[in-house]
Amino acid sequence: MNHENKSGVDLKEIANLCKRRGFIFQSSEIYGGMGSVWDYGPLGVELKKNVKDQWWRRIVYDRTDVEGLDAAILMNPKTWIASGHVDSFADMLVDCKVCKKRFRVDKVEGDVCPECGGAFTAAKSFNLMFKTQVGSVEGESQDVYLRPETAQGIFVNFANVQTSSRKKPPFGIAQIGKSFRNEITTGNFIFRSREFEQMELEFFVKPGDDEKWYEYWLAERMSWYTDLGINKDHLRFREHAKDELAFYAKRCHDIEYLFPMGWSELEGIASRTDYDLKQHAGAAENGSSLRYFDSQTNESYVPYVIEPSGGVDRAVLAFLVDSYRSENVRDKERVYLSIDHRLAPIKVAVLPLLKNRPEIVEMAHKILKDIKVGGRVVYDDTASIGRLYRRQDEIGTPICVTVDVESLTDNKVTLRYRDSMEQDRVDISKIKEVLGEKLKV
Amino acid sequence: MNHENKSGVDLKEIANLCKRRGFIFQSSEIYGGMGSVWDYGPLGVELKKNVKDQWWRRIVYDRTDVEGLDAAILMNPKTWIASGHVDSFADMLVDCKVCKKRFRVDKVEGDVCPECGGAFTAAKSFNLMFKTQVGSVEGESQDVYLRPETAQGIFVNFANVQTSSRKKPPFGIAQIGKSFRNEITTGNFIFRSREFEQMELEFFVKPGDDEKWYEYWLAERMSWYTDLGINKDHLRFREHAKDELAFYAKRCHDIEYLFPMGWSELEGIASRTDYDLKQHAGAAENGSSLRYFDSQTNESYVPYVIEPSGGVDRAVLAFLVDSYRSENVRDKERVYLSIDHRLAPIKVAVLPLLKNRPEIVEMAHKILKDIKVGGRVVYDDTASIGRLYRRQDEIGTPICVTVDVESLTDNKVTLRYRDSMEQDRVDISKIKEVLGEKLKV
Repeated sequence: MNHENKSGVDLKEIANLCKRRGFIFQSSEIYGGMGSVWDYGPLGVELKKNVKDQWWRRIVYDRTDVEGLDAAILMNPKTWIASGHVDSFADMLVDCKVCKKRFRVDKVEGDVCPECGGAFTAAKSFNLMFKTQVGSVEGESQDVYLRPETAQGIFVNFANVQTSSRKKPPFGIAQIGKSFRNEITTGNFIFRSREFEQMELEFFVKPGDDEKWYEYWLAERMSWYTDLGINKDHLRFREHAKDELAFYAKRCHDIEYLFPMGWSELEGIASRTDYDLKQHAGAAENGSSLRYFDSQTNESYVPYVIEPSGGVDRAVLAFLVDSYRSENVRDKERVYLSIDHRLAPIKVAVLPLLKNRPEIVEMAHKILKDIKVGGRVVYDDTASIGRLYRRQDEIGTPICVTVDVESLTDNKVTLRYRDSMEQDRVDISKIKEVLGEKLKV
Repeated sequence: MNHENKSGVDLKEIANLCKRRGFIFQSSEIYGGMGSVWDYGPLGVELKKNVKDQWWRRIVYDRTDVEGLDAAILMNPKTWIASGHVDSFADMLVDCKVCKKRFRVDKVEGDVCPECGGAFTAAKSFNLMFKTQVGSVEGESQDVYLRPETAQGIFVNFANVQTSSRKKPPFGIAQIGKSFRNEITTGNFIFRSREFEQMELEFFVKPGDDEKWYEYWLAERMSWYTDLGINKDHLRFREHAKDELAFYAKRCHDIEYLFPMGWSELEGIASRTDYDLKQHAGAAENGSSLRYFDSQTNESYVPYVIEPSGGVDRAVLAFLVDSYRSENVRDKERVYLSIDHRLAPIKVAVLPLLKNRPEIVEMAHKILKDIKVGGRVVYDDTASIGRLYRRQDEIGTPICVTVDVESLTDNKVTLRYRDSMEQDRVDISKIKEVLGEKLKV
C-alpha cells in the first residue's frame, strides 16, 4: 500500500471529490456561480471548523499569553487610511485596447496583449478593497470598505484588549474571520478567492525582543501544520528578499506548501516593528497613544509586532491535498483521506450490516446516541457494507462501527480503521472508552 | 441572596460591564466608532463561540436529520432578485425638509418632523442591502450585495446538499454566519446592528407534514433557550397576525425575550411553504428543479420549509442580561453572571493565594496545564484573592481553583463556586475528575 502522498495530486480530482461528497460547492451554482467565491457543504463546514478550532486551541487555549478577538468586517474607513490600504493596497493594471482584457502589470511582459497582440493602455492603479456605503441619512452616508485583512481590527483594539485583560508584553491577540479582496487573478480552486477566511495573530513584544520572538513563531507555526499531519517534506520556509519587504518590515517568511500547482504560500510570518500601532496612534481621534506603560520599570513604549497570518481556506486545501490517497485493493481503486482525526469532518460512522433487521438497526441507533466524541457522528444504511466503508474512507472518517447479527448475541461490534482497514471486535460496553482514547482531541 | 434576574436590568450597566471586562467594544472606537457595528473582545469571542457551538451541537451533532452549511456572504446577485429582496427588502422613508433628518414612515405619525416640526418629503423606498462591485475587468464589473440573511445561501444549495448527503425529507440544513443590513433605526447596544450573525435552519418537509413540524420546532427552539438557563418567565411566543405575514407564509411566531427595553424578538420561526425553492427553481440557470423525488413512492414534490431563524448577537445579549445578578455581600455589592457553564467564557480560573511564593505559583501553573475542560482556563495573580474572586464572578467563571500554603503540604486546593460562593477542599489528584463532572459540555 502506498501511504505516501502522491506527488502531483490533481487539483481537479480534489475539487471533484469536494463537490461530489459535499465539502465545497461553487457559490450560487444554480445561477452560474459567483466569481471565485466558494460555499462549504456539510463536510466542508466541519473540516473548516475543525481547522479553526485547532488553531484557536493551540494559539489561545493552550497558552496564557494570547487573548482572542472577533472584530467586525465593517470598520471606520479612517482605519484604512492610517494603515496605508487606501493609498497602496492596489495592483497596477493595464487594459488591452483591442480585446479590452485587463492584466496586472507585474504579470505581463512587453507592451502587447498576450491574448490578441493589441496594445496596452497606460497603467493605472486599482484598489483591491471592496467599497460600500453605510448609513441612510441624506448627506451622511459614508464610503466604507470590506476589510481586506483581519489584522487592523486587532491593532485598533490594542488598548481595549490590553486594558481589559491586564496583559503585559509579550502577549498576543488572535482573531479568525472573513476578509475580502477584489482580486484580479483568482483561481486554483479555493487557493485564491475574493472572500476568504484568515487566522491572524498579532504578538506584541518589547522592542529588542522581536528577533527572538520572530524565531519562536516561525518554529511554532511550522510545527502546527506538521503536528496535524502535513508531511514535513511538503512544507518549507521562504524568506522574503529585501526588495519584497514592506518598507517598515524587518523580516518576513512564508510557510509554503507543495500544492498541486507548485510551492505556494500557506501562511506569512512578518516582523512588522511598531509601524501599525504608530500609524493608528498618529491618526486616532480619542487621544489613544497605543503605548504600553510598564509600571514596574517605569518604561513606556510602543510594542513591536510579530504577525503569523494564515489562510483558513488554504490550510483546508493543504490538509485535503496532503491526506489524499489512492491505492489498489483487490483490483479496485480505493480513495481515502488519511487525515488527522482531529480534523476529520465525521469522527465515527455507525453502520448496520443489515438494514432490514430491526434489532440491528435499533442497536446501531443506540450506539450512535451513546457516542460522544465532541464532533459529528453519522449513521448510514443506504448501501452494502463494502460500499459504506469506501464512502467513509473517501471523506476521511477514522473509525467505522459495524453492528452485525452476531452483535445481537455477543454484544460486540466491529471497529474498522480507515488507513489500515484493520478490524477489531470490541465489547459494546467498551466502545465509548476505546473511541474516546483513539479520537482524543 | 437574590437569585432571580432583576427585572429592569439596565442596558447601560450591561454595556459598561461588556466594555470594561472585554466582552464587547464599539467597532473602530479610536476613530470615533462605526455606526452600529460592534467588536467582540477576549471574553465576548468566547461567549459568542459557546452560544454558536451549543446551537450547532443541538441542531446538527445531536440529530441525524440535519446537515451543516457555510455559504459565502457574496452571492450571485440573481439570488436576491429571485428571493424578492431586490424589489421589496426596503423601508419607506421620508426626509424632513427643514432639519434633513430621515425617518421610517411606519415609525412616525402625521406629516411633520418629530424633531423640528418641519414638513416631510414624499416617501421613497430605501433598500436595506449593502451593495458593492465585484470584478475588475472593464465593463464586466458586477453589482453584488452583502447578504441580508443567511437563508438564501441554504436554498440555492438545496440540491447540492441533498444529493451529496443522500438525505430525504424531513431533513434540514443549518447555517451560522454574518449578515448585513443598512438599518435606518439601529441601537439598543448589540440588539440591532448593521453587521450581525445569524443561526438559521431550513427544515424541508413533505407538503402536508409542515404543520406538525412547525409545532415541533416551536417547542424545540424554546427549549434550547430555557435549557441553557434563560428564565422561562422572560420568554414568550408571539404569533404574527395575518397582516404581518409575508404573502407566501402560512404562519410565523417570534420567540421574544424580556430585554431591558421590553419584549423583543430573539428568534423567528416561520412556515414558508415552498415559496423560496420555487422562486429559485423558476430562475435557476442550470435547469435545477429543486424538487425531491422519492424513489420508494415515485412521488416528486418541492418540499415545504420550516425556518427557525435566530440572532447570535441577540442570544448573547439575552444570556448576559438574564444571568446578570447584583447582591449585597457584607455591605458591598457583588455583581456576578449566573451563566450556564457551557456558555461561560472562562471555565476555570486558577488563582495562587500568594504570588511571591514560587512553590505556590509553580503548583498553580501545573494545575492550569493539567486542566482540560474543552474551553478557556486562565491564571490570575494580579490582586488579592477577594478581588480575584469578584473579577471572576463578574465575568461568569463557574469555578475558581485556589492554591494556598496548605496546598503545599496536604496536596489539596480550594474549589470555589460562583453562584453560592461555597468552597470545597479537593485533592489535587481529583481536580480533573471533579471539574470534568461539574463542567460537562
